[in-house]
Amino acid sequence: MGRDLVERLPERPDFAGLLDALAYDADGLVTVVAQDAANGEVLMVAHANREALELSAATGQMHYYSRSRKKLWRKGEESGHTQRLLSLHFDCDGDAVVAQVEQVAGACHLGYRSCFAYRWDPAGGYVQAGRKVFDPQTKYGRA
Amino acid sequence: MGRDLVERLPERPDFAGLLDALAYDADGLVTVVAQDAANGEVLMVAHANREALELSAATGQMHYYSRSRKKLWRKGEESGHTQRLLSLHFDCDGDAVVAQVEQVAGACHLGYRSCFAYRWDPAGGYVQAGRKVFDPQTKYGRA
Repeated sequence: MGRDLVERLPERPDFAGLLDALAYDADGLVTVVAQDAANGEVLMVAHANREALELSAATGQMHYYSRSRKKLWRKGEESGHTQRLLSLHFDCDGDAVVAQVEQVAGACHLGYRSCFAYRWDPAGGYVQAGRKVFDPQTKYGRA
Repeated sequence: MGRDLVERLPERPDFAGLLDALAYDADGLVTVVAQDAANGEVLMVAHANREALELSAATGQMHYYSRSRKKLWRKGEESGHTQRLLSLHFDCDGDAVVAQVEQVAGACHLGYRSCFAYRWDPAGGYVQAGRKVFDPQTKYGRA
């Protein structure tokens, strides 16, 4: 099996052929980057197993696999903040995926549009830079 | 130690304080998403340990930790396709970082601007969608 995804892909892969060629880790997971299709903002980084990718493609709603809870979940199943899948983009070694999505409200359980709400740069240092889009206490009953 | 990064951050964190608060995995790593600061394109997903983040911040050039080679590396040290760091964005649980970068030539060792060159969507299926920006044979001596 080649190191690069293209070496493992059939000539005209269908979705199952693509999933066959991925480089899952020891737990059967790949890394997923959810990106806002409207403006390119990275919303969250999570993981998916083959079943989560299959369900995402079949339903058009992003599914992930939680490493801490050891279970499959549909994004927004609790909060209603679902992600509609527009396209998947696989990387050269086949262990990571960018999902272009339409995000309802916000991706972060703390109420931010993106989970990447904590910014640092060489000139300005640290700043809390997240855009709050909902009140997490009304959605999840926690601060 | 709280589950959320903000619960572990000091009130006005410097860079060391930020790095102290991250949720490194068992190998001391966090996931890094390198994003083209000019157009938001996700260029690659890799990993960094604390030292790689420190070196990235200190030199302004992205450094990573290779899980397969078990060593620190500077992006572009072989190819010249370096990444200048503009800002880092940490996520809510502190185990992933988005790095906004200026990418020289292309991020992918296969000659593409982005490693995420293999696209699938529900309507169109699979298409090789990468933008070739250099000839990998002249850069790395491989096809």
